[in-house]
Amino acid sequence: MTVWTRLFFFTLLFVSPLAAQSSTLQPYDSLARRIVATALTTNHAYEMLYDLTTNIGPRLSGSPQAAKAVEWSKKKMEELGFDNVRLEPLMVPRWVRGSVEEATVIESGTMPPMKLSIAALGGSIGTSEYGVTAEVLSVRSFEELRTLGDKPKGKIIFFNRPMDQSLVATFQAYGGAVNQRGDGAIEAAKVGGVAALVRSMTTRHDDVPHTGAMHYVDSIPKIPAAALSLVAADNLEKLLKSGKPVKVNLKLSCQTFPDVESANVLGEFSGSEFPNEVVVVGGHLDSWDKGQGAHDDGAGCIQSIEALNLLKQLGLKPKRTIRAVMFMNEENGLRGGLAYAAKDRPGEKHIAAIESDAGGFIPRGFGVSDSAAHAKLVRWAPLFGVIGADRITRGGGGADIGPLARKGVPAIGLSVDAQRYFDYHHSDNDTIDKVNERELALGAAAMAILAYVIAQEGL
Amino acid sequence: MTVWTRLFFFTLLFVSPLAAQSSTLQPYDSLARRIVATALTTNHAYEMLYDLTTNIGPRLSGSPQAAKAVEWSKKKMEELGFDNVRLEPLMVPRWVRGSVEEATVIESGTMPPMKLSIAALGGSIGTSEYGVTAEVLSVRSFEELRTLGDKPKGKIIFFNRPMDQSLVATFQAYGGAVNQRGDGAIEAAKVGGVAALVRSMTTRHDDVPHTGAMHYVDSIPKIPAAALSLVAADNLEKLLKSGKPVKVNLKLSCQTFPDVESANVLGEFSGSEFPNEVVVVGGHLDSWDKGQGAHDDGAGCIQSIEALNLLKQLGLKPKRTIRAVMFMNEENGLRGGLAYAAKDRPGEKHIAAIESDAGGFIPRGFGVSDSAAHAKLVRWAPLFGVIGADRITRGGGGADIGPLARKGVPAIGLSVDAQRYFDYHHSDNDTIDKVNERELALGAAAMAILAYVIAQEGL
Repeated sequence: MTVWTRLFFFTLLFVSPLAAQSSTLQPYDSLARRIVATALTTNHAYEMLYDLTTNIGPRLSGSPQAAKAVEWSKKKMEELGFDNVRLEPLMVPRWVRGSVEEATVIESGTMPPMKLSIAALGGSIGTSEYGVTAEVLSVRSFEELRTLGDKPKGKIIFFNRPMDQSLVATFQAYGGAVNQRGDGAIEAAKVGGVAALVRSMTTRHDDVPHTGAMHYVDSIPKIPAAALSLVAADNLEKLLKSGKPVKVNLKLSCQTFPDVESANVLGEFSGSEFPNEVVVVGGHLDSWDKGQGAHDDGAGCIQSIEALNLLKQLGLKPKRTIRAVMFMNEENGLRGGLAYAAKDRPGEKHIAAIESDAGGFIPRGFGVSDSAAHAKLVRWAPLFGVIGADRITRGGGGADIGPLARKGVPAIGLSVDAQRYFDYHHSDNDTIDKVNERELALGAAAMAILAYVIAQEGL
Repeated sequence: MTVWTRLFFFTLLFVSPLAAQSSTLQPYDSLARRIVATALTTNHAYEMLYDLTTNIGPRLSGSPQAAKAVEWSKKKMEELGFDNVRLEPLMVPRWVRGSVEEATVIESGTMPPMKLSIAALGGSIGTSEYGVTAEVLSVRSFEELRTLGDKPKGKIIFFNRPMDQSLVATFQAYGGAVNQRGDGAIEAAKVGGVAALVRSMTTRHDDVPHTGAMHYVDSIPKIPAAALSLVAADNLEKLLKSGKPVKVNLKLSCQTFPDVESANVLGEFSGSEFPNEVVVVGGHLDSWDKGQGAHDDGAGCIQSIEALNLLKQLGLKPKRTIRAVMFMNEENGLRGGLAYAAKDRPGEKHIAAIESDAGGFIPRGFGVSDSAAHAKLVRWAPLFGVIGADRITRGGGGADIGPLARKGVPAIGLSVDAQRYFDYHHSDNDTIDKVNERELALGAAAMAILAYVIAQEGL
């Protein structure tokens, strides 16, 4: 559109309902506006995320890049003048993809052999150098697989149930499909399968495979598992529909090494009145080894650091301590979240934990684990009207702060517009160019405002 | 994030407040959900937009591509089985950029001469083949320019006030800067300037210039005008700050030809009970000649067509007529919007007009020009809760439906999250890869739901 002669026709989308606001919120309203303006003007969050993602890159737990990211975060928080910057060491799994991941259709009546774009699932065992060669059997669900008697025996089981695109909530669509990735290798092995291929968990139809966590149980044989791009999955399904047997050779060189030492990274803005009462803001520093871990969850880490930085820049003095925590190993173990909550912290009380781990998209509000905390946030919602992030829902939090929530700490997740999230998630598509500077900054501002209000008012 | 073991922690962002909903809305609620699911599943809007933007491209009024787009729209609506598909002819301006647009810093103490990335502003006169060569004078506002006495005489006036990045509402930031583009050439010429260079209206710091409409008045000499990319604008400002005189040579081969015939394109879904009562849904078919006009406003056109198509696909029978209108020439004349409203349509009554012209981003709600219509939409807002587009604001509409609004027709604009809009707007960045399929589809669904409810209930 061209607006200059007709601007008066255009609505301003975000209207802060100041007039209707209770007097207790008044002092925070102008502060919220200053936080937002500062976040949008300085562009500091994006600059940090650019540095982390392009100079370090993806940060799988136990990798050299994850170790660099730990040092980077510590240094960054020190440079910004945070208090008590420190590492809390912990052991993490070390899984390495290796250089070989190939799936080739070697018998299907088509020539030349079709190459399928794949990514080993995180935690998978590798194959021998010759790979696993077997006929492929396609199924849509574990239930279907269990009805097939002896048919799956000796076969590569291909789990091809898509995410349900008709759902508005992409996380719900993910939830409806992701058991294939998480448990596919177990279910396939139970019925004699020799490997598992899984349709990528994504909303985008392209040739990029999306990795993610899978697991084994000790009582069931371990078989290799990989994700197929949607193009590869559709092509494989077409070959199978032709009726002829389709044989695939799958080669993976991934392997699991002994656990290595890593750390959560903490830094804080000490409370002026109640320094032992702590509000956590965090994200997870590890990522998968594909792309750059920009949205998942570089964005959440940077927003947490920037939330504290914004408050410092504005010269504020929170009554309670606000602590930024870069959790390690959310993706394949949650060791950081578990270790943080398990640690004995004498005299200290956590009053809330806020996590950003749904991508650096435009914020819409917060999801709250606890009903009393939810009621308070509903009252504070008008403060977030200026950025359209005033939707407060029940349920929510984040994986890393789940262990705190189970100890009774109210857990709060930053809600964002996640329509684009699964286009990028766990894949080579999750790079810095997919992050918008203003959307990222507004998420940081939302976290800063909420953390500060909780630090002043309690929760 | 990895979710499969922890999904229960995750909030579903969009909660339809069905329970609190009045009984009159109940029948529409399940329909709204079906419309949304169909839009997300078929991906039809994106396929149409892909075709329009990649096979036709940008569609400046009077250009061969605009003519193709008129035919394309007519054919598309016929293929989809719309009623009364037709063209309403009108004359449009024909401005052509030409092959030469160059700005070179030829004297500044730096070597080699610095090339500045520019785009002629739409409507600008060209220069001679040797261009205009003059010293550059930088100003931030017309007020500043008017205080400079004789200094601007014979100079190229460089308007370098940025959009205010601290504002959440990007349209407001645009409104605060765009007079430089629209009126810069007039104000520069008034004080003896020989050309105008204008900092691009954009939120993204890159080397891509953003064009847009400028105009002249007959009483003031016409001088050429071009937009500078932000990189070029910042570099030029740096040279000027060094204190030495900076001379630029500006060459533009753009020119204005006589008006040519074009058309608005109409197609409808005829009302079963009150066919003479019309709800318009529209966007503008023309675009600037940079990029592909994907967000501005290919998206709005396609969403309008898709809104009708969704209702047809679901076998609905609207009581009143819903008419899709592809308006021509919004960008540099508004001839389509004016002609549509001026046309005599005996026996016909427009009861509402809905426009999408803020980009194909995630919908947030609607802005309404009229207070009675606003009150009704507020009551219907829960229907849009399922897609988080339930924010109903006063003010709004769209440029093309402005002339209808001035005749008393309630004008309604689709509100979207426009944080990214001005990254792309009027530039080579406005291409199909910047459009997300799901966000585009949700906007089409929002328009379909609203058009249908108005067709059934009146407004």
